[in-house]
Amino acid sequence: MGNSIGKLFTLTTFGESHGIAIGGIIDGCPAGIELNFEAIQHELDRRKPGQSKITTQRKEPDTVEFLSGIYDGKTTGTSIGFQIQNTNQRSKDYNHNTDVYRPSHADYTYAKKYGIRDHRGGGRSSARETANWIVGGAIAKQFLKGIEINAFTSSVGHIEMPTHLLDFNKDSIEKNIVRCPDTQTAAKMIELIEKIKKSGDTIGGVITCVIQNVPLGLGEPVFEKLHAELGKAMLSLNAVKGFEYGSGFAGTKLKGSEHNDLFNADGSTKTNLSGGIQGGISNGMDIYFRVAFKPVATIMQKQETIDADGKLVEMQGKGRHDPCVVPRAVPIVEALSALVLADLTLQNKARQ
Amino acid sequence: MGNSIGKLFTLTTFGESHGIAIGGIIDGCPAGIELNFEAIQHELDRRKPGQSKITTQRKEPDTVEFLSGIYDGKTTGTSIGFQIQNTNQRSKDYNHNTDVYRPSHADYTYAKKYGIRDHRGGGRSSARETANWIVGGAIAKQFLKGIEINAFTSSVGHIEMPTHLLDFNKDSIEKNIVRCPDTQTAAKMIELIEKIKKSGDTIGGVITCVIQNVPLGLGEPVFEKLHAELGKAMLSLNAVKGFEYGSGFAGTKLKGSEHNDLFNADGSTKTNLSGGIQGGISNGMDIYFRVAFKPVATIMQKQETIDADGKLVEMQGKGRHDPCVVPRAVPIVEALSALVLADLTLQNKARQ
Amino acid sequence: MGNSIGKLFTLTTFGESHGIAIGGIIDGCPAGIELNFEAIQHELDRRKPGQSKITTQRKEPDTVEFLSGIYDGKTTGTSIGFQIQNTNQRSKDYNHNTDVYRPSHADYTYAKKYGIRDHRGGGRSSARETANWIVGGAIAKQFLKGIEINAFTSSVGHIEMPTHLLDFNKDSIEKNIVRCPDTQTAAKMIELIEKIKKSGDTIGGVITCVIQNVPLGLGEPVFEKLHAELGKAMLSLNAVKGFEYGSGFAGTKLKGSEHNDLFNADGSTKTNLSGGIQGGISNGMDIYFRVAFKPVATIMQKQETIDADGKLVEMQGKGRHDPCVVPRAVPIVEALSALVLADLTLQNKARQ
Amino acid sequence: MGNSIGKLFTLTTFGESHGIAIGGIIDGCPAGIELNFEAIQHELDRRKPGQSKITTQRKEPDTVEFLSGIYDGKTTGTSIGFQIQNTNQRSKDYNHNTDVYRPSHADYTYAKKYGIRDHRGGGRSSARETANWIVGGAIAKQFLKGIEINAFTSSVGHIEMPTHLLDFNKDSIEKNIVRCPDTQTAAKMIELIEKIKKSGDTIGGVITCVIQNVPLGLGEPVFEKLHAELGKAMLSLNAVKGFEYGSGFAGTKLKGSEHNDLFNADGSTKTNLSGGIQGGISNGMDIYFRVAFKPVATIMQKQETIDADGKLVEMQGKGRHDPCVVPRAVPIVEALSALVLADLTLQNKARQ
Repeated sequence: MGNSIGKLFTLTTFGESHGIAIGGIIDGCPAGIELNFEAIQHELDRRKPGQSKITTQRKEPDTVEFLSGIYDGKTTGTSIGFQIQNTNQRSKDYNHNTDVYRPSHADYTYAKKYGIRDHRGGGRSSARETANWIVGGAIAKQFLKGIEINAFTSSVGHIEMPTHLLDFNKDSIEKNIVRCPDTQTAAKMIELIEKIKKSGDTIGGVITCVIQNVPLGLGEPVFEKLHAELGKAMLSLNAVKGFEYGSGFAGTKLKGSEHNDLFNADGSTKTNLSGGIQGGISNGMDIYFRVAFKPVATIMQKQETIDADGKLVEMQGKGRHDPCVVPRAVPIVEALSALVLADLTLQNKARQ
Repeated sequence: MGNSIGKLFTLTTFGESHGIAIGGIIDGCPAGIELNFEAIQHELDRRKPGQSKITTQRKEPDTVEFLSGIYDGKTTGTSIGFQIQNTNQRSKDYNHNTDVYRPSHADYTYAKKYGIRDHRGGGRSSARETANWIVGGAIAKQFLKGIEINAFTSSVGHIEMPTHLLDFNKDSIEKNIVRCPDTQTAAKMIELIEKIKKSGDTIGGVITCVIQNVPLGLGEPVFEKLHAELGKAMLSLNAVKGFEYGSGFAGTKLKGSEHNDLFNADGSTKTNLSGGIQGGISNGMDIYFRVAFKPVATIMQKQETIDADGKLVEMQGKGRHDPCVVPRAVPIVEALSALVLADLTLQNKARQ
Repeated sequence: MGNSIGKLFTLTTFGESHGIAIGGIIDGCPAGIELNFEAIQHELDRRKPGQSKITTQRKEPDTVEFLSGIYDGKTTGTSIGFQIQNTNQRSKDYNHNTDVYRPSHADYTYAKKYGIRDHRGGGRSSARETANWIVGGAIAKQFLKGIEINAFTSSVGHIEMPTHLLDFNKDSIEKNIVRCPDTQTAAKMIELIEKIKKSGDTIGGVITCVIQNVPLGLGEPVFEKLHAELGKAMLSLNAVKGFEYGSGFAGTKLKGSEHNDLFNADGSTKTNLSGGIQGGISNGMDIYFRVAFKPVATIMQKQETIDADGKLVEMQGKGRHDPCVVPRAVPIVEALSALVLADLTLQNKARQ
Repeated sequence: MGNSIGKLFTLTTFGESHGIAIGGIIDGCPAGIELNFEAIQHELDRRKPGQSKITTQRKEPDTVEFLSGIYDGKTTGTSIGFQIQNTNQRSKDYNHNTDVYRPSHADYTYAKKYGIRDHRGGGRSSARETANWIVGGAIAKQFLKGIEINAFTSSVGHIEMPTHLLDFNKDSIEKNIVRCPDTQTAAKMIELIEKIKKSGDTIGGVITCVIQNVPLGLGEPVFEKLHAELGKAMLSLNAVKGFEYGSGFAGTKLKGSEHNDLFNADGSTKTNLSGGIQGGISNGMDIYFRVAFKPVATIMQKQETIDADGKLVEMQGKGRHDPCVVPRAVPIVEALSALVLADLTLQNKARQ
């Protein structure tokens, strides 16, 4: 189980990195939305491998094919089936893994939980799955007209963007390959990733996401709070180790008198440590949160590990992997945000 | 919506802080579990207000009454209904709030989302709801025999427990009123909270939770990952602003060669930066995570705010509130963990 | 599991016939609905035992107490908790059943499935549960302003109401104790039930339900068709053995040229063998369906049966039971219909 | 919504009859099941059009392609994606329908609910969708080893199979094209269907389904009763107007003393009017139920109808349609039964 996200705007997915295709079904998308297919493909291109010198050099065209639910370019209200062919699998890159469990990967847990696993490229645990989310999220974005979602790389290793969270130039995000809106920081990040890559190692980082023009009222009171749904979605993303919104962990050091967001007469707040959400419900201010990514587990260095018989063996990563997932994860964070917002928008609409 | 948690072991709840009662329904608990009712009440007592000088002085006996699903002291497999009477509501403490939106509370968002709100004590947004979770979690814990869940206060404001996450004395947790297993740190935390309280202010903090003896295989691959479900549950808790597990945000600064957990021959790992979860599935190692709590929004100082007409008014907290929610939230974090683990245990069992 | 109905307008319930109380939680009811509490109690009175000479003589006041989700007489949008005390349990009526499995009851299957059972009055399998549905349905009805739901007894044993399904006088339904709108048929039905009762036996029957003023568009295309949701709800009702809508089983004998409902220019249809539903979606015409009830299994005659050890024993019903459940089931069929329609109304609203 | 069935063993589907492909995702199927692909294709062949002179003469090879979730011929425990290409769409058969609402079809309700519709071949409302169910059901059947599910045609129009429900020769079902195990009745049914077809008309019928070797304990007590889930699944099938199990509608005419199934010492029952289910839970006896199908709405005769502007127009069916859906629906009833049983089996297993 666990291959679905959303309750009213749902995405259910399938696919292993080295199978024939990956794909999904979007159920619950309202009818009559005129789709911009180029915009969908554009999002896939932002995620796809091989897009720059700091990403994996695998080439996957990642072209989405829609199979149903669309007529005359518009959604019909029925389920939207889609698939993305797997065209560049070099499964033999993984032959050495057949019985070897890679450290800090899902190989061991999958093998033990299911008693069987598709060892090629991580199978279902591969981040290739996230291409499906991009498709779902791109359609959700088109449904959510008016709401603006921008994610960006705010730190790589120890290099952090100095500016305040909400004070970024959104037009600068796509101007560099690391997707950090601060040009100077971006240069340092790229330099670090190249250095890390040369050494056969990998590095983690943080993505910040800012959501603007959110209508008041999204989110449900107790167990479907807006930030809880966002957090769950982000924690579903491969390599994510943490999520914080608004003041986050730093806010734990503040006093109430410092932390409270005082109101303006129009209901907006003078500060926004709440991160645009109060009691689990959007208050109309900007939503922002941060997502922590660990370094990629596949490194091009020798590591000792075990095989299926518990024998210690030496292994070295062979495939074509990212030295840092963060730049490619930026559009994925946006896609997941869009899926969550679309779902809670429908839920809110149902009762008004 | 949003008043349920869990798919196979579900808890659905109701109740406002100043209504007649709060309560819930546990659905999916297996039959034949001999319940220890004292243990359930003990957990409620750990959460209840008035338990020490650093908590609110409200007195709520918080006695749970079971209405169904139990026969001869054992669960029958049918739904378990329960309620907890509200006995110590001083609704008049809230008369001054009728039309006033407290800063950084849910008053404004509830009023705007629903067009109506029960203003007494925060209504449904009150943390009184968490007493329901304690009941559900206490039963989940008894179902999860063998798995050990221990949460504790690891920081209050700037005061942090120095010891390593997993290196704590679990018998010391309940030895002090702040629930920090390090006696010296605990003393400093208590001192800080008392000082904060005297100034009519509040302070945030962090709870760490460690789960031991977890069987391998809990968690589903993509959208119901074990840590994503834990994260969602924690983010449902009032005042929580962040969640991280394993290496968390600090892990983003590490290299893959530093972060990877190398295997021992038996499948255990030499290090545990993964936090006991790989690919969303428990690997048998200890699970640990950290939860960030903001300072309580109700302070005993004058604040400017607005009323329902958008008029600026001055207000001052009157009720009996916690200067720091963290000590009382420790058993709640454990209860939510138990609910998540019970649910994923059933899901795992279904397919074996 | 299985103690919830509905996806967006949900009712989750608990309670055994001989426990302290039964009750439930309604989640998803929109805010701001001004509740008519007398109307809710009126529906409970229509269901309650002891209401006439042809029902069980048990006396249960069945007073509902609301615990949350209502403020100033209006729904607040949060979960509505309620309970109904069990006041007239004569559990000793069931002492003879401790280890005896009553024929065609749920005793045997519950005992074997769960390994434990509350034998008093059928425990969770008792139709006492349906009082909870009445409460949920009564609130759903008030939400569904404008839609009119009328059920009635259309047959008891071999006595069938002669008139056409949709050609009934709704004001006559409550004029007699068997709830058949045709006075002459009603008299015969009552006579039959009294005769059956005198012989210590029971008898089955059929309820017809007609729903008018249903807006076009309720129901989802494939697996949440309006009639499938109605059918599932009806088949959840104790003693129900069948469900048919529109032309039903009789329609299987017709030719397409006889069965097709031709359109009028305004989209209404000249005939209505479709029963107001086409492709699983309401078309604005009257919805009607029929529900089959078997005779009550508890009879006041000696029957041979087995006990928990598989020993053959003789037993005779002792409690106070209905000779025919159909008259009391009429308001339950309406309540379940209202719950289904409320749920699908919200789902439809979400996407418009 | 509404494109999913099942809670733990789920099938989510997509596809219009005249799109590129139909398909689905099976989520929750346990790992390690060695699949018999020929058996899956065999079930598709039993459903496919053009298989005999009494079915539609459309030719659709209906070859299923699996895209994920299977490795080395075994299920891996992850989601199983599949698709079936649409190869024989003659969309121009439907050009005359662009703006015309066919009587007793879903054209009108879809157009009004969604404001847009894929008019070719009924779009999403087409029974082509049921090929997806066959795939899901065939895999569910292989998971349910030991349980035997046999459906057959028990009536067509007024021609009814004389023998008792449970007294049929399962080896005879596939021996004739109408799938009635009684050879003499089968001949009459075929004759009737051919006559009806010649007149450009259609006819309804009834399918009986018998499920044997069901373990005791499947089904949940209140809202997920085994027969309610079966009923809901059957009522999802195109053209179905009714469902009854065990004694069904005929049982309403019996007295309790006639209807009760008395026990044998081993817990089996001497009679089985309960249809193998008591209190919503399987009791180990044979389960049997009947499903009513209306005559196909598309007839090859002139009918008056309306177009999108409400103008009265004359139309005549052109495509290639079944004069009676019942023979081809037999494997679909079995597939849906398997899906329901697989789901409830997992749910039962979760708590044992």
